[in-house]
Amino acid sequence: TFAVSSQALAAEAEQVETLRVQELEQRLLVLERKLEIQNEEAAAKAKDAPVVTAGEKGFSLKNAKGDYEIKFSGLAQIDGRYFIGDDSAFRDGFQARRLRPTIQGNLGKLVAFRFTPEFAGSGFGEASGNSIVDAYFDLKFSPAASLRVGKQKGPIGLERLQSGGSIELIERGFPTELVPNRDLGVALFGELAQGTVSYTVGVFNGTADGRDVAAADDGLKEYEGRLFVEPFKNDYGFFKGLGFGIAGSTGVKDGTGANLLPRYRTPGQNVFFNYGETAGATGYFATGSHNRYAPQAYFYRNSLGLLAEYVASEQTIARTNGGAEQSLSNTAYSVTASYVLTGEDASFKGVKPSKPYAIGGDGFGAVELVARVGNLSIDDDAFVGTAATRLANPDVSAKKADSYGLGVNWYLTQNAKLSADYNETRFEGGAAAGADRNTEKALFTRLTIQY
Amino acid sequence: TFAVSSQALAAEAEQVETLRVQELEQRLLVLERKLEIQNEEAAAKAKDAPVVTAGEKGFSLKNAKGDYEIKFSGLAQIDGRYFIGDDSAFRDGFQARRLRPTIQGNLGKLVAFRFTPEFAGSGFGEASGNSIVDAYFDLKFSPAASLRVGKQKGPIGLERLQSGGSIELIERGFPTELVPNRDLGVALFGELAQGTVSYTVGVFNGTADGRDVAAADDGLKEYEGRLFVEPFKNDYGFFKGLGFGIAGSTGVKDGTGANLLPRYRTPGQNVFFNYGETAGATGYFATGSHNRYAPQAYFYRNSLGLLAEYVASEQTIARTNGGAEQSLSNTAYSVTASYVLTGEDASFKGVKPSKPYAIGGDGFGAVELVARVGNLSIDDDAFVGTAATRLANPDVSAKKADSYGLGVNWYLTQNAKLSADYNETRFEGGAAAGADRNTEKALFTRLTIQY
Amino acid sequence: TFAVSSQALAAEAEQVETLRVQELEQRLLVLERKLEIQNEEAAAKAKDAPVVTAGEKGFSLKNAKGDYEIKFSGLAQIDGRYFIGDDSAFRDGFQARRLRPTIQGNLGKLVAFRFTPEFAGSGFGEASGNSIVDAYFDLKFSPAASLRVGKQKGPIGLERLQSGGSIELIERGFPTELVPNRDLGVALFGELAQGTVSYTVGVFNGTADGRDVAAADDGLKEYEGRLFVEPFKNDYGFFKGLGFGIAGSTGVKDGTGANLLPRYRTPGQNVFFNYGETAGATGYFATGSHNRYAPQAYFYRNSLGLLAEYVASEQTIARTNGGAEQSLSNTAYSVTASYVLTGEDASFKGVKPSKPYAIGGDGFGAVELVARVGNLSIDDDAFVGTAATRLANPDVSAKKADSYGLGVNWYLTQNAKLSADYNETRFEGGAAAGADRNTEKALFTRLTIQY
Repeated sequence: TFAVSSQALAAEAEQVETLRVQELEQRLLVLERKLEIQNEEAAAKAKDAPVVTAGEKGFSLKNAKGDYEIKFSGLAQIDGRYFIGDDSAFRDGFQARRLRPTIQGNLGKLVAFRFTPEFAGSGFGEASGNSIVDAYFDLKFSPAASLRVGKQKGPIGLERLQSGGSIELIERGFPTELVPNRDLGVALFGELAQGTVSYTVGVFNGTADGRDVAAADDGLKEYEGRLFVEPFKNDYGFFKGLGFGIAGSTGVKDGTGANLLPRYRTPGQNVFFNYGETAGATGYFATGSHNRYAPQAYFYRNSLGLLAEYVASEQTIARTNGGAEQSLSNTAYSVTASYVLTGEDASFKGVKPSKPYAIGGDGFGAVELVARVGNLSIDDDAFVGTAATRLANPDVSAKKADSYGLGVNWYLTQNAKLSADYNETRFEGGAAAGADRNTEKALFTRLTIQY
Repeated sequence: TFAVSSQALAAEAEQVETLRVQELEQRLLVLERKLEIQNEEAAAKAKDAPVVTAGEKGFSLKNAKGDYEIKFSGLAQIDGRYFIGDDSAFRDGFQARRLRPTIQGNLGKLVAFRFTPEFAGSGFGEASGNSIVDAYFDLKFSPAASLRVGKQKGPIGLERLQSGGSIELIERGFPTELVPNRDLGVALFGELAQGTVSYTVGVFNGTADGRDVAAADDGLKEYEGRLFVEPFKNDYGFFKGLGFGIAGSTGVKDGTGANLLPRYRTPGQNVFFNYGETAGATGYFATGSHNRYAPQAYFYRNSLGLLAEYVASEQTIARTNGGAEQSLSNTAYSVTASYVLTGEDASFKGVKPSKPYAIGGDGFGAVELVARVGNLSIDDDAFVGTAATRLANPDVSAKKADSYGLGVNWYLTQNAKLSADYNETRFEGGAAAGADRNTEKALFTRLTIQY
Repeated sequence: TFAVSSQALAAEAEQVETLRVQELEQRLLVLERKLEIQNEEAAAKAKDAPVVTAGEKGFSLKNAKGDYEIKFSGLAQIDGRYFIGDDSAFRDGFQARRLRPTIQGNLGKLVAFRFTPEFAGSGFGEASGNSIVDAYFDLKFSPAASLRVGKQKGPIGLERLQSGGSIELIERGFPTELVPNRDLGVALFGELAQGTVSYTVGVFNGTADGRDVAAADDGLKEYEGRLFVEPFKNDYGFFKGLGFGIAGSTGVKDGTGANLLPRYRTPGQNVFFNYGETAGATGYFATGSHNRYAPQAYFYRNSLGLLAEYVASEQTIARTNGGAEQSLSNTAYSVTASYVLTGEDASFKGVKPSKPYAIGGDGFGAVELVARVGNLSIDDDAFVGTAATRLANPDVSAKKADSYGLGVNWYLTQNAKLSADYNETRFEGGAAAGADRNTEKALFTRLTIQY
């Protein structure tokens, strides 16, 4: 009976054991399921969770699907500017050149937007005129065809299309003086042939050369267009970084004032030409067609960058509304070369330092050398005639400006850049009694912060 | 002994087994507790986690409790405007009509704020005057009584109180020309009777008709108020969408200039009336009381919307400070009807498309037709007298303007709207030698982006 | 055989049991590992997750590492201003005094930035001049030495350096009229000796007394510096809250206009002194050196606050460029005392209520009483000479202004403050025929919202 009773006990124990194990199995099942559910929930939540970004590329909020996004970025440039041997004709000193907080983003798959006010400007410390740099909306029908509505860059000048935070020298060169800055209108743009061809065609209110005008001053329009090809963009060969194109505009301007007539400036940002008998005059009249054409190219290969463009701008001008009019063709060109000493790649969008400068660290950032030559030539006919008949005064406005510039850019990080440039510009005419305007020697320094 | 020893072995095995099961139970307990803790922690964390929103309703950051929130939104409108047969008296072209990024939010349960600068404006491309549209703070004591301090909409015009992104036609109608735009002051507002009654009473610096003035030009005040009733708001009957009310202002104005004297504009935004002998003059004087009253109503039922308002504005004016003064009463009315072809509900706050337009999708958005008639009549007494005594010149300013408008709104998505309007305005007087000012035919188009 | 077979069965059952337990162990192991992995993943994710903040201290996005951050904050002040018994020489009414949304943050360890536009200003309701208050970048080399580049506060006046949301009375006192407001330049600043010593030295474009000028009007520079000591800052004794220092500037100004010549205002913000024969004239010339020195101190102990400063500003002025010049020294002082009735600590940065006001709650906020005396004295030599030779006209500009002010601040929450002040200013000279300008009695009220 001992065996039997012990057997019975064992069986009982076994049964208890079995129950305990069954219970364990049950609890384990529950736990496994719980963990599964937890993981599923976490995954679902992560899938729906908005995405917040904060880093060197900026700050943004995005929904989980990614079609709604708002991004906060900014570009600020504080300059120290000195003119050498100029007897203080130009003001030396500190200047806030660009203060541009930007809000951009996507509102669903169809709509993208960019809004950039400018808080710098002449005398920005006092009550002053702020303005809008960019305020546009893209209706993104396809990569091959989107519609940009609003204030945007006129699609003509190559250096003009480069971001203000990425230009190689502190101020853009002469061709930029002949093309629209920003304009208000509607443009169709897109990329074709695997992105090797990009185009823009648009209708705008129309701007005087080098001006940022958005108002419809004369009710007349300007048509602007650009075709740019990067044939080897998707290859890995020598010419991968080659791009070239042609841009132009055609339109009619009718009226007077700064919004319809140009003035031309040096790389030191001083006006050396305007229509009229006196410096700064804007009282003559645009009385007809205004056409521009602008061949352009760039080439980036490892640390080397080259950028060249030419612009001709032909506009009909008269001293009075209805008076004798002349079609004058002013031209400009510029060639810029850059080389990144620290070995990073040169590009149209600037240099990204491979080892950013860090306090107490071993990174130094990237250093780039830049050189540029350029010329702006006024149509000789502008100066033909007497003080009573000619369109420009050779004792006030120069006929030609030749400039060369040298610069160095120190990219401390992707967000901070220190620049120093020297630009020298020589003139033909522009001073009293047929003399040449004094050579301008501009030493500019700049801190650029962008994110 | 075999049985015994086998029994002993079995018992031993059982003991081992039991220990393993006990250990398992122990580990399972630990695991269950861990998962529990993890869930509790996750729940606690979720409860404290700030909430980020990104979507068609905008972009926001909010604390877990929900009483602190900042929201980024925006309203932008880019117009193409054309005046038919006007011999370019008015400027055709593109125009940025509204560029209004907005920051709004809550700072605890007590304080809410809204800050909306305006970056559009005349000649916004050049250095220009930006201004503040809204800059106010609500002290939210209760739904029945909150205090709004700062620059805000004057609570008189019904269409004026409609958001600029929701108005039915591209520009508001005549009554809006007679009521304050924005003003600076303090207002008490709230909702009573389950939200069926809303009221606002406030004291402000005071604005000329149709002006946006925040400066205290004359040190005198204007009292403004509005009572609006939606008696069936909480029912589901035919009149659910009916609202009506009365608004008005009383105050004193003393001085001269654009901040104290009105000019009246057409739906094409061209001035057709001002006090003085010449167009655009603002040199006459406000010399006393200025009162307005404005009955108003709307009715929304399914796809149909109706909005009607009348305004009378009575102001004391004189040619010189201390000269003979006259109290003139100018009046305006407007009736607007809208119908959503695609079946969505019409509302005071605009139309939300049930099937938003999607590229390659089957949604098309919502389409709405709009019609409006309106009139603005100047007090006859304004024109009585000679060029040396009268307050307005009938050869320069029209006595009456009648306008009708037709429009179509295509709500692509909740964020994007395309609009096209035709407005025709006929005048009585306003041209040389007693003739009528030319009929204005305005064809306006607009892209509205809001979020 | 029964025993044996039962033994066999038992053994078999045991084997089954063992297998089940083994399986359980296996599953448990898997589960334990899964939970471990999940926790590790969650921890890793939390470590990389950007940090969103929303609360009474503002709204921000930060990366996990904490070196990239953008923060949205704001300061708004809406005033109601009344001048007692002034026959409406000054405008009573509502005024938006400060509307300053701010974006600030860090772009990596090296770069910090602050950008604050001002949307208030004279006539801000109309198209008007907005301006930039702060737009600077800090290159943070170390706590002992950082470089601030851009538009920033001139480091001279003690009350000027206090935030506009934290000043004790509604407008700052007389010394602030003699020191730079904001200026554009480069400053080196830092803290030494465990933070008990702070210093700033900088070179700026230079500003007229009390002006906010960022333009380089004359191409000349101003050097500004400040040394401030809080010797017991890190102790817990009676003098813990004591700070004192000396600041000053030296520079040269050459030219005419509002950016180079000062005007001095009362705490009621009305101009009572300017160079020239007529009120508001700015046509005289700055023709040489301009130096300031400014001893200053504060003391905070529990609810009590004391702030005192003195400024002397010595500038060379002439009626015409090249004409007879005089070096004039104008001086100002101010002593401000404050006491927090509700027991919170007074501080240079304002009062934080221990029990914020809550609707239906028992918190009331903090209440503070403030008193101030001050004086501004013009150099007697300014008034010496005839109307044809003197630099200031005693019938137009006062020689001396004495002011006292009383105020109460109710800090409802950390974000909302209601203030009411009475300031009375008595003058010596400044009215026709050698009489004294009328005593100014200013009753100001203000709602401050900041976050």
